[in-house]
Amino acid sequence: MSEVVIAGIGQTQVGEHWDISLRSLALEAIEAARAEVTGLEPQALFVGNMLAPQLSNQAHVGALLADYAHLGGIEAFTVEASGASGGVALRAGYLAVASGLVDVALVVGVEKMTDTIGGEVEAALSTANDSDYEAVHGLTPTAQAALLMRRYLHEFNAPRDGFAGFALNAHANGAGNPKAMFRKAITVEMYNQAGIVSDPLNMFDVAPFADGAAALLLTRSDLLPKNFSHPLVRIKASSMATDTLALHDRPNPLSFSAVQRSVEQVCDKARITPLQIDFIELHDAFSIMAVLSLEAAGFAQPGEGWQLAQSDFIGIQGSLPINTMGGLKARGNPGGASGVYQAVEAIQQLRGQAGKNQVPDARRAMIQSLGGPASTVVTHILETL
Amino acid sequence: MSEVVIAGIGQTQVGEHWDISLRSLALEAIEAARAEVTGLEPQALFVGNMLAPQLSNQAHVGALLADYAHLGGIEAFTVEASGASGGVALRAGYLAVASGLVDVALVVGVEKMTDTIGGEVEAALSTANDSDYEAVHGLTPTAQAALLMRRYLHEFNAPRDGFAGFALNAHANGAGNPKAMFRKAITVEMYNQAGIVSDPLNMFDVAPFADGAAALLLTRSDLLPKNFSHPLVRIKASSMATDTLALHDRPNPLSFSAVQRSVEQVCDKARITPLQIDFIELHDAFSIMAVLSLEAAGFAQPGEGWQLAQSDFIGIQGSLPINTMGGLKARGNPGGASGVYQAVEAIQQLRGQAGKNQVPDARRAMIQSLGGPASTVVTHILETL
Repeated sequence: MSEVVIAGIGQTQVGEHWDISLRSLALEAIEAARAEVTGLEPQALFVGNMLAPQLSNQAHVGALLADYAHLGGIEAFTVEASGASGGVALRAGYLAVASGLVDVALVVGVEKMTDTIGGEVEAALSTANDSDYEAVHGLTPTAQAALLMRRYLHEFNAPRDGFAGFALNAHANGAGNPKAMFRKAITVEMYNQAGIVSDPLNMFDVAPFADGAAALLLTRSDLLPKNFSHPLVRIKASSMATDTLALHDRPNPLSFSAVQRSVEQVCDKARITPLQIDFIELHDAFSIMAVLSLEAAGFAQPGEGWQLAQSDFIGIQGSLPINTMGGLKARGNPGGASGVYQAVEAIQQLRGQAGKNQVPDARRAMIQSLGGPASTVVTHILETL
Repeated sequence: MSEVVIAGIGQTQVGEHWDISLRSLALEAIEAARAEVTGLEPQALFVGNMLAPQLSNQAHVGALLADYAHLGGIEAFTVEASGASGGVALRAGYLAVASGLVDVALVVGVEKMTDTIGGEVEAALSTANDSDYEAVHGLTPTAQAALLMRRYLHEFNAPRDGFAGFALNAHANGAGNPKAMFRKAITVEMYNQAGIVSDPLNMFDVAPFADGAAALLLTRSDLLPKNFSHPLVRIKASSMATDTLALHDRPNPLSFSAVQRSVEQVCDKARITPLQIDFIELHDAFSIMAVLSLEAAGFAQPGEGWQLAQSDFIGIQGSLPINTMGGLKARGNPGGASGVYQAVEAIQQLRGQAGKNQVPDARRAMIQSLGGPASTVVTHILETL
C-alpha cells in the first residue's frame, strides 16, 4: 500500500457568510490547498457535505465543484454521514490514494448553515437522527445531547460546572486561531451565567452552526515536486465504525462503542497506543460529546472524563492538548466541513504553523469526527514524516 | 490489484411501496444479496441514495442500514451524485475491494419517492441541477430534458416518433421482468397518443418515479466459499467522469462529453471496444438521454442515435440489446437505487437467469448511470469469469 501524504491544506474563515455562495466558499478552500503544491493535477474530488440539498437546494455538489473549480471533468461525488461527513470524505480520499488507483485526490468539506430561517437548521440536522423513531417525536440533536448530559450528571454524580473546562479551553484556543468563528476567551463565570439552550446544556456547551469550507490535497510522497517546501504529514492510519442510529437501541447510552472500536482499530493500524499521540481534535459539537468520546477512547474511566478539564491537562501546554485551534465550539461547526477543518488544523500543528497555539514538538495527532450520537465515527492518525 | 467479483445480488419489486419504510426496503435487498453467499461477512457498506434527506427526513442512511441490517457496526456511508448515486456506490465498493483494504463490501441503492405530495419530488430532483442558475428559474430535470429533445429534433430534423422505439423496447422488456414497475408492452399508437408531460416529451418518454432497493455483495474471487453455485461475474472495469453542472455552460448541449470520456476510459481499462459488449443498460430517465448517451458512447453518429430504435437492433435478440429488463422507463426509476438495479439485472443476464428476457450468449455488459444531464457519468463493464 502506498504512503498517503496530505500535501496541501486550505480553509476559509468560519462564520456567517451570507454574501458568499456554497460553491464560492468551497472554491476558496480548494484553491488555497492547490496553491500549496504546484504541478499536481487532482484526479478525483471527494466532497464532505451534509445539508446543501436541504438548506441550499443543491445536491450533486461533487459535479458542481469539479465544474466550478475547473478540475477538467474528473470523478467527483459527495459522501454523507451526518456530522462525520468531512471525516468520511477524508477517508474516501485516503482509500483512493492508498489503493494506488488515484495518484492525487482533493478532499473538500463545505457547509452553509446560517442564512436560513429559525428552526430550519435544527430540523435539517434532525435528519441525522432516526427519523421514524426519534426525530418524529421532536428529538433534535441538541435535545438528545441534553438527555445524554442529564443522564451523565445523574449516573456519575458529576458537578454541572465540571463541563466548563472544555468550553474555556475551546474559546482560549479559538482566540489564537484567526480562522475561528469565536476568537475571545471566556471565564468560568461567563460559562456559569450562560443562557440555557436545552436543560442542562447552556450556550457554551453547544457548538455554533456555521458556514465554512476546508480542503486537502492528498497524494503519494513519491509524487511530490522537488521544490515542495512544507514539512510533510502522512495519514498513518484511518478507521471507521458505526453504532445504532437510535440512542434507545444501545445497552448503555453513555458508552460510545463506535468510538472505542474506531480508536482501537486506528491505533492497531498505526501500531501505537492512544497515549502516544501529541494532541487530539475531538468532535465537541456538545461538551458532553467530548467527555464521552474521551472516555470511550480510553483517555479516562467512565464517569471521569470531565475531570480532564479541571486543570491545564487539555491545554496547549498540557499533557493531552484538545481542540487546539478552538474545536467545533469556538472555531465553529460547519457540519460536513468540520472533519476537514480538523485535519487542516492538525496539519498546521504538525507543520509548526499554529502560531501562538502551537503545541510544542507536535509530531502525531488523532482527529475524530462523529455523526449523530457517535452513530458514525471516523478516526485518523496524522504524523510528520 | 485484486479481481473484484459480484457474488450476491438482491432487489425488491419496483413500484409504489407506501406500506414499506426506507429501511425495510433496503433490508429486503440486502438480505437477498447476502443469502446468495454464505459465510462472507461484509466489512463495509456503501449506500447509494439521493433523496432520503428531503423526502423521508432521513440523512445518515449508512449508519441506519448498518444498524438495521445487523452488520455489526461496520463502516457505512452514503454516496450521492444525483441520479448516478447507485452507480457511484458500486464504484466506491469496487475501489474498496480492488484496493485490498476491504475483503467483502455491500453496495445498496435505495430510494422512496412515491409517498409524497404533488410537486415535492420534482422539486427535490431539481436540487440535482444547478440551484443558483437553473433550478431557481424553475428548470426541473423534466423541463431540461424537454429542451434537449426539442433542440435535438430541430438540429437534426429527426422525426418526433423516431423516439418511440426506445419506449416500446423498454416496455416490451419490462413485460418479462417480474420485478419491473410496468409489465405491459405498448404499441406505437399508444406512444403517439400519450399525454404530453413537458412538450415535446410525452408520458412514454419519461421514466416513472418509484420506490425500490437493490443490493450487491462484492468480494474477491479467492475468498468465495467452495460451495458457491452461481456463475461468477467480475467487475472488469469502472470509470467515472463529470461535465458542467449547468447545461448552458456547454459548447454543445447535445454532446454528452462525460459519457464519451467515461466510455473511452472504461473500454481502455477493460481493453475492449464498445462493440465488444453483448448488451448495455443505459440511463433512460428520458428517451432523449438514451439517444444522446448512445451517440456520445460511439454507438451512433450525432443525430443518428434515434435510428438504432427503428428496427429490432436494440431488442433482446438484436445486435445491441438495450435495457434488457425494462430500463428506468419500465422497470422504474427509484433515483439512487437505479444504478444498482442496472448491475443486478446485468448479472441476471450474465448468469443466464434473465428468463424470457435472456440475451443469448451474454458474457459482457456495459452499465451506465447518469446524474443530471450527464453531469456525472459512471460506467462499468461486467463480465462472466
